[in-house]
Amino acid sequence: MVLEANLASVHAISLFVVLLCICILIGHLLEKTRWISSTIIDLVIGFSTGAIILYLSKGTSSLLFKFDEQLFFNYVLPPIIFNAGFKVEKKQFFHNFTTIMLLGAIGTLISFIVISQGAQQLFKHLDVGFLDFGDFLAIGVIFAATDSVSILQVLKQEETPLVYSLVFGESVVNDATSVVLFNVIQKFKLTTTVVGSTVARQFVGDLVYLFVASTFLGVIIGLVCAYVTKKMCFGRHSSDREIAVMFLMAYLSYMMAILFNLSGILSSFVCGIIMSHYAWHNVTANSRVSIKHGIAAMSFVAETFIFLYVGMDALDVERWRFVLHSLGTCVRVSASLLGLVLVSRAAFVFPLSFLASLTRRGAAEKIGFRHQILIWWAGLIRGSVSLALAYHQFTTSALTQKRENAMLITSTITVVIFSTLVFGMLTKPLVWVLLPSSRKVDNNNESPEPTTSMTTLLGDLGLPLFSNGKDSKVNMTCNLARRSILRTFITTPSSTIHFYWRKFDNSVMRPVFGGNPVR
Amino acid sequence: MVLEANLASVHAISLFVVLLCICILIGHLLEKTRWISSTIIDLVIGFSTGAIILYLSKGTSSLLFKFDEQLFFNYVLPPIIFNAGFKVEKKQFFHNFTTIMLLGAIGTLISFIVISQGAQQLFKHLDVGFLDFGDFLAIGVIFAATDSVSILQVLKQEETPLVYSLVFGESVVNDATSVVLFNVIQKFKLTTTVVGSTVARQFVGDLVYLFVASTFLGVIIGLVCAYVTKKMCFGRHSSDREIAVMFLMAYLSYMMAILFNLSGILSSFVCGIIMSHYAWHNVTANSRVSIKHGIAAMSFVAETFIFLYVGMDALDVERWRFVLHSLGTCVRVSASLLGLVLVSRAAFVFPLSFLASLTRRGAAEKIGFRHQILIWWAGLIRGSVSLALAYHQFTTSALTQKRENAMLITSTITVVIFSTLVFGMLTKPLVWVLLPSSRKVDNNNESPEPTTSMTTLLGDLGLPLFSNGKDSKVNMTCNLARRSILRTFITTPSSTIHFYWRKFDNSVMRPVFGGNPVR
Repeated sequence: MVLEANLASVHAISLFVVLLCICILIGHLLEKTRWISSTIIDLVIGFSTGAIILYLSKGTSSLLFKFDEQLFFNYVLPPIIFNAGFKVEKKQFFHNFTTIMLLGAIGTLISFIVISQGAQQLFKHLDVGFLDFGDFLAIGVIFAATDSVSILQVLKQEETPLVYSLVFGESVVNDATSVVLFNVIQKFKLTTTVVGSTVARQFVGDLVYLFVASTFLGVIIGLVCAYVTKKMCFGRHSSDREIAVMFLMAYLSYMMAILFNLSGILSSFVCGIIMSHYAWHNVTANSRVSIKHGIAAMSFVAETFIFLYVGMDALDVERWRFVLHSLGTCVRVSASLLGLVLVSRAAFVFPLSFLASLTRRGAAEKIGFRHQILIWWAGLIRGSVSLALAYHQFTTSALTQKRENAMLITSTITVVIFSTLVFGMLTKPLVWVLLPSSRKVDNNNESPEPTTSMTTLLGDLGLPLFSNGKDSKVNMTCNLARRSILRTFITTPSSTIHFYWRKFDNSVMRPVFGGNPVR
Repeated sequence: MVLEANLASVHAISLFVVLLCICILIGHLLEKTRWISSTIIDLVIGFSTGAIILYLSKGTSSLLFKFDEQLFFNYVLPPIIFNAGFKVEKKQFFHNFTTIMLLGAIGTLISFIVISQGAQQLFKHLDVGFLDFGDFLAIGVIFAATDSVSILQVLKQEETPLVYSLVFGESVVNDATSVVLFNVIQKFKLTTTVVGSTVARQFVGDLVYLFVASTFLGVIIGLVCAYVTKKMCFGRHSSDREIAVMFLMAYLSYMMAILFNLSGILSSFVCGIIMSHYAWHNVTANSRVSIKHGIAAMSFVAETFIFLYVGMDALDVERWRFVLHSLGTCVRVSASLLGLVLVSRAAFVFPLSFLASLTRRGAAEKIGFRHQILIWWAGLIRGSVSLALAYHQFTTSALTQKRENAMLITSTITVVIFSTLVFGMLTKPLVWVLLPSSRKVDNNNESPEPTTSMTTLLGDLGLPLFSNGKDSKVNMTCNLARRSILRTFITTPSSTIHFYWRKFDNSVMRPVFGGNPVR
């Protein structure tokens, strides 16, 4: 083609696509060695490419293009979050709902307070430069945001079903809470430590409003999509239309939330849950398979993209020029932030897990100390959301103009890479040490068959939220979940709510919005 | 979210997504009335939205955003073209290969020469302003580019299999020829009518080089993808990886071509053919369904997007301000261009069809006069490629700065809308008049069942390139094609090539690159 003006972007896109392919190939080859997650591979390949570009450009740049928040928030994040909602195990999620909300919402708030207060105290003793109160609050949010992507890669559902469900659920609520918190902080633009009670009340009010409104928006768009797909029977003429409508509506749930100043993350996550519960069952078999795998593949590419970029960005020359002048300070800042991450997470995981255990009946339901340690550990990884928020707070169009800003970006990248590499790699050994029984499950799982058979495909259609090409194991989990619901229905009131919801769902919701008739 | 700077784009994206959903819904509701194709619906909805925006903005703008060539060529066009290659009926396509190449390559060249020469003569008598020789050549290409999208919407394969195959195949080769021609014209930047023989020879040389190199690149990337998917067995661990790799490689075939200054359209079309022949058969059943429908849905959304945009753009205020001063001239220019489109297509369809008929044995193989009229008529519609090329030639960052440029953009839009509306709507009655037998097929096809059954899904997997949810009919076509291949093998030499290719394919290519083993 002739469009010379866009040749630079063509270069960048082509190289990025090639790198993505390489990441996928190597990730596949190293799939069995779970010590190295594909996140780590992406980081290493990104870093190496950055080094090569840096060498070829004779030290002027390691990047193909500058970080573009808009690209990240408008295009890369939505598929990841929607996919998380779409494939969440609804039964497990709602079964552990109170615990997940405790850890995800209250826990994130505690973590946020500990980190921002801790940073304010610690940074006094380090030569960081001037940061106002709003900056410290932002630091609190940035390092309170866990990385749900990496968590899914290091924990396996079959090994530790309870921890997996809690940590994954928590990480999604945490994503939403962090972004909502960040929005509110940005809105109030607090520069002094003195915060009046009116401001504090407004702050909390906004937080609650954002949570409720975003959830509501996600539910509405999900239900509209379900109603439309049920009434229109698109499949009669072409499956393209129903696939297109579902993808577009999913994206709409994110963009509309942003348009109304709500949390796109929460809204599209909720929309994903609703769509997988109703709309997904209204479309043809072909479309169902395509939508499920299409969204998963998009999310997968988006995740790979993020870590590739972070790997490249770690070598950003301009930023290092600032940082190298005060390398010692930078190391100290990164180390204290890492320490705060460890402490702040401990500060809520252990007390809140204890609290949650009080409301949970039966020994199997209690969260034991070993499980608490795992929950604490698995949520230590920091990732894409932290980075995106840090870029947003401390850069102006991705150029770090002040020394302290450059330092904080570098520290964020350091914490992200360190936590991904070290904490991520140590998770599997830790699971083995703490839960020796899990090793057996893992060994059984060593050589799964290629999922080419028709049975898998049929399984995929029948068991939307439990299937992953390992049907037998999945059915087991499914049965377990059913049994425990029956038992808890007798012992705890939360199951009563679940029972009435099921009744309401079957008699009112499903006839209108569609959904799987046999449950 | 808080990113205020990007709120304008969030507005635009949200509105566009909503509009796309509305187009899909209305398109579905009006599916049965084939007088109104979904292209027309998109145009009308785009136009109406443009009018509303124009009213709300008090006459300052009808657009949500300015036309961005980069967006169009880098993101919107690739899925459409790749999908065309992926779903092309290879047997039909290669069976009619010579005829298709005659019409698509030689025909487009004839059309290009007639239009550019005709425009040069006619515009002398109209008050158009100054246009250099390069502009006239560009006009020739712009109006020689047919619209494969609309053609597929107005012709149905079951009614007129021969015409459908020829016109569709021709339109794809035409797309590629037009873009290649346009590239070469831009490269030479011809300003005078006097073209030396050296330049002419270079021109032809470049044309041949672009054709061969682009095809070669598409084949290579397609084969690499096939080899990788065959060797790696991605499906063993996750179907996300194989879906991602195929989509990324498909996109790569387009971007790499642009990077090497080749034709992305031709390259990704060829890559689509190769991938559907080899790589598609190497992946798991789930991935096969997802890839096929995913690409089709993306292509569908991209097409809808283009016509929505064109509808909105028709009301561009700035351009109309230029044009209104000389409305008479503008109408005359549009009318003469439309006339040239009609004449130039007649100038190659009838002689070349006659020529092609000479090489085709058997009465069923001959292209009768009625079919020739249909071929001529179906290719009259001008669409997205014409528009994209026109924007590229006559605008600088989508602002029409000269009066003649504004006039030519407006004329292009007029021709596109007129041909889509009028020629598109009249195609069905014309088919009925010329081929009364087709009416029967159409009536049988009135109420197809929803394709929810497992049989369709299985059919989808077994018969990749012929299935469309109408298996019985599809099998018939398939058998017909087989029979005619056997017959033509005895009578014509082209089938001998096909025979040896089949042998080579089965003994050398398939063992290495995979592919459907049972044929």
